[in-house]
Amino acid sequence: MSLLGEHFLSIDQISLDEVEKLFALSDQFLPVANRKMIFRPLEGAVLGSLFFEASTRTRVSFEAAFNRLGGSVCSTTGFTFSSMAKGESIYDTSRVISGYVDILVIRHPDKGSVAEFATATNVPVINGGDGPGEHPTQALLDLYTIRTEFRRLGKSLAGSHILFVGDLKYGRTVHSLIKLLSLYENLHVTLLNPPELTLPGALLDIVSRRGHRVDTCHNLASVDGKVDIIYATRIQKERFSDESIGGYTQDYHVNGNFLSQVGDGHTVLMHPLPRDSAHEANDLSVSLNKDPRLAIFRQTDNGIPIRMALFASILGVDKQVEREFRPVGWWTPRAIGPGDTDFSAI
Amino acid sequence: MSLLGEHFLSIDQISLDEVEKLFALSDQFLPVANRKMIFRPLEGAVLGSLFFEASTRTRVSFEAAFNRLGGSVCSTTGFTFSSMAKGESIYDTSRVISGYVDILVIRHPDKGSVAEFATATNVPVINGGDGPGEHPTQALLDLYTIRTEFRRLGKSLAGSHILFVGDLKYGRTVHSLIKLLSLYENLHVTLLNPPELTLPGALLDIVSRRGHRVDTCHNLASVDGKVDIIYATRIQKERFSDESIGGYTQDYHVNGNFLSQVGDGHTVLMHPLPRDSAHEANDLSVSLNKDPRLAIFRQTDNGIPIRMALFASILGVDKQVEREFRPVGWWTPRAIGPGDTDFSAI
Amino acid sequence: MSLLGEHFLSIDQISLDEVEKLFALSDQFLPVANRKMIFRPLEGAVLGSLFFEASTRTRVSFEAAFNRLGGSVCSTTGFTFSSMAKGESIYDTSRVISGYVDILVIRHPDKGSVAEFATATNVPVINGGDGPGEHPTQALLDLYTIRTEFRRLGKSLAGSHILFVGDLKYGRTVHSLIKLLSLYENLHVTLLNPPELTLPGALLDIVSRRGHRVDTCHNLASVDGKVDIIYATRIQKERFSDESIGGYTQDYHVNGNFLSQVGDGHTVLMHPLPRDSAHEANDLSVSLNKDPRLAIFRQTDNGIPIRMALFASILGVDKQVEREFRPVGWWTPRAIGPGDTDFSAI
Repeated sequence: MSLLGEHFLSIDQISLDEVEKLFALSDQFLPVANRKMIFRPLEGAVLGSLFFEASTRTRVSFEAAFNRLGGSVCSTTGFTFSSMAKGESIYDTSRVISGYVDILVIRHPDKGSVAEFATATNVPVINGGDGPGEHPTQALLDLYTIRTEFRRLGKSLAGSHILFVGDLKYGRTVHSLIKLLSLYENLHVTLLNPPELTLPGALLDIVSRRGHRVDTCHNLASVDGKVDIIYATRIQKERFSDESIGGYTQDYHVNGNFLSQVGDGHTVLMHPLPRDSAHEANDLSVSLNKDPRLAIFRQTDNGIPIRMALFASILGVDKQVEREFRPVGWWTPRAIGPGDTDFSAI
Repeated sequence: MSLLGEHFLSIDQISLDEVEKLFALSDQFLPVANRKMIFRPLEGAVLGSLFFEASTRTRVSFEAAFNRLGGSVCSTTGFTFSSMAKGESIYDTSRVISGYVDILVIRHPDKGSVAEFATATNVPVINGGDGPGEHPTQALLDLYTIRTEFRRLGKSLAGSHILFVGDLKYGRTVHSLIKLLSLYENLHVTLLNPPELTLPGALLDIVSRRGHRVDTCHNLASVDGKVDIIYATRIQKERFSDESIGGYTQDYHVNGNFLSQVGDGHTVLMHPLPRDSAHEANDLSVSLNKDPRLAIFRQTDNGIPIRMALFASILGVDKQVEREFRPVGWWTPRAIGPGDTDFSAI
Repeated sequence: MSLLGEHFLSIDQISLDEVEKLFALSDQFLPVANRKMIFRPLEGAVLGSLFFEASTRTRVSFEAAFNRLGGSVCSTTGFTFSSMAKGESIYDTSRVISGYVDILVIRHPDKGSVAEFATATNVPVINGGDGPGEHPTQALLDLYTIRTEFRRLGKSLAGSHILFVGDLKYGRTVHSLIKLLSLYENLHVTLLNPPELTLPGALLDIVSRRGHRVDTCHNLASVDGKVDIIYATRIQKERFSDESIGGYTQDYHVNGNFLSQVGDGHTVLMHPLPRDSAHEANDLSVSLNKDPRLAIFRQTDNGIPIRMALFASILGVDKQVEREFRPVGWWTPRAIGPGDTDFSAI
């Protein structure tokens, strides 16, 4: 399936071949994302950015990616969408806005609502997160990060060992990433989580059926062997009815000790963010901020090339890439810390 | 009167000749509005979009129209306008913002406030709706829709029969459209409304004085003859102190039965939107969504060429149109339903 | 120090030489700010405009200035910044957004928070106001206004008499402007304020140490000689525990009488705005709105060239200015009142 003119609502709709094409295109966009080159094939196009649920980082990432391609953005946040408050259906809202813009990014707190939006519109809709449903561009940028980190380290995905730690029950980014990963071959996946926050069985089935090795454990000492990737997630205290979470702290607090027990000098540290720095006991520690293995900001940086590639594929401006690049005429950023994207290398 | 450099606050200020010029220009802009061509004479210009009252659809329509002409938009919604909260006058706010932008679109809940804004500024102000006052661009796009639908059907405005149904007392879009229509000749206007929601006498006088035939009735059976246009509006239950509205339902609920009684195969169905799909008994029924006579989305689509034409006329970039068009380089939408604009025909 | 690639957090970091360079560049940008010429070196660049505290005028001024240079803007207002509500640190937020944009403007209610943002990012940060801290671009545009008004009047800064009136204790714009002015030589500064709202001692020391003459007085009659500039500020009633402010009204209400007592035909009237027109007794009177000596709107107009110059200096596109200008193709505003910028003269 080509993405041209299509909605992008779920990672289930995209094949391994299409993922690889998108990543190759993202690679081509890196000089634009990193502000070395200009490429503006979408001058005159308009993105409708409808965030019925606030998510500034995701919104700015989509909008900046569209701006980098030369397009303009019409943006709205929250349910200031007055007409919907007056009883307007998603069908009407969607169809009306479709007349104004070329493509829509929609985030909505209700699962399935973005797909409902898509049925009524004649322009492509990208799912920017539909509550407990999907957030497919996050899964793409996560996998793209694993791929670029491995390339840097001379590793390959096949045969690698990936540790997911934290809340694996409610974390939709983990679910989508695991689905994407399972398309590849011969992985070793370890799931480290409190018993109350286990990965849903349906997802476990998908991974196991594909022949990957899956270990499930509830304490750090049980992790078998060194891991190539640690994908950490936040454990929200409010998930627990009592204080039982207190006892797990040492096993799910991703800090220097954690890293030395299951990782080595080339282990890559990822996190979908935000992390709760105010209560970091059940999350990724800020003490690792200067550690070059911390890839969380290279990971968010990757949101731009991935989203550029997605816009370009859907709107069909993915052919003239590179040939039409021209150099940026202004100051561009340099890496300031070990966790930064190395702009000079691009 | 030319629109060049002028405020556009009320449909009263615009002559039949100017309306026709604006519509001819809107026709020229259709290929841009429908994303076939690019025209960017306003690169470098900035629109100030001040929506003191939320109205996402209207705001996005104005902003996308300005973007399509190449301009940038600075937008604000709601009374986050902190300085006005601190006692700043409309005069000061208006004059300050004027120094930053080339043109202003203002929506405000208070009648007359947009005109007050206009007195203090040295840039043109477009009224995006001032509460119970006016919403002149809505009236223009409504009339433009009647014109394009009639052209498609081979009909002419002179001699046509137009039915307004619903709340004709408070509906400002009906008031403005009726004023505009009365500039033309030889119309048959039927007003179908609950007795509590009758068109204001002053407006009735305007239409009658011009020699048009006006029928007023309170039940569907009294409508005399088949109509060319049904312009439906929402009846808000809160307008009634008791439950009396219940009895009217069958007469003001625009559905298949309604359409078959007063219309024929070429009757055009319009509505200013939003319609209340959650309580559709007193509004336009969603059961007509697949009916090609339903023009409500072609009507909202028309907001773009109309607003482009208005911006271009006021800012004086209406001369080089077409000569400077260049083709769009990306995927453009196609009609997906019978109620859609037929892009292939453009 | 060059501004290239640097943060701009405080006026303390900028030298007299750098101020003068910035003003010369602002002069060059006047034809763009006044919509006579187009200059778009930042096509493809993205500004992140993060206003954690609403300030529409300041936000629009920054965003329009960036748009005038050809750049795009991603904007957010208020603490809809959901991830920070979830316990995310300023460090993480800053670093993530840095991956999306070329430069950041940040306004935040907490003193020092903008500087904290700057430590985590690899793109330049401009302080758009950090609560009781600084608002350095306001100070720059204030000084630039004094400079351009004096030039128009054939006066020079050296030897001039500047009167600050109102709340000199809490007004951060007064503090920053006084610091900037003290870089120059041989000024006569008069401070006219209620005893409760005196300029902080540390600032008084700075001005006095530089050899300027400083008079402090609490009533209008004590002002010694005619003044060249009146810089008025709003006295907020809530600063006083009792009704004592009532007695001061006549001395701090800047109206025609005030102006005739301390000024002459060439006295320039400034104010950082907003002024409280609803309770003008302790503020600048609207009765002076038609007086050509009122420079408050020329002052806000100056926000555009100053902010363009700052963006251009930091992003390094300040070299090709003028050579690459091309004329505007649309209608441009003219002065409508005596307090307006005279566009014809530019």
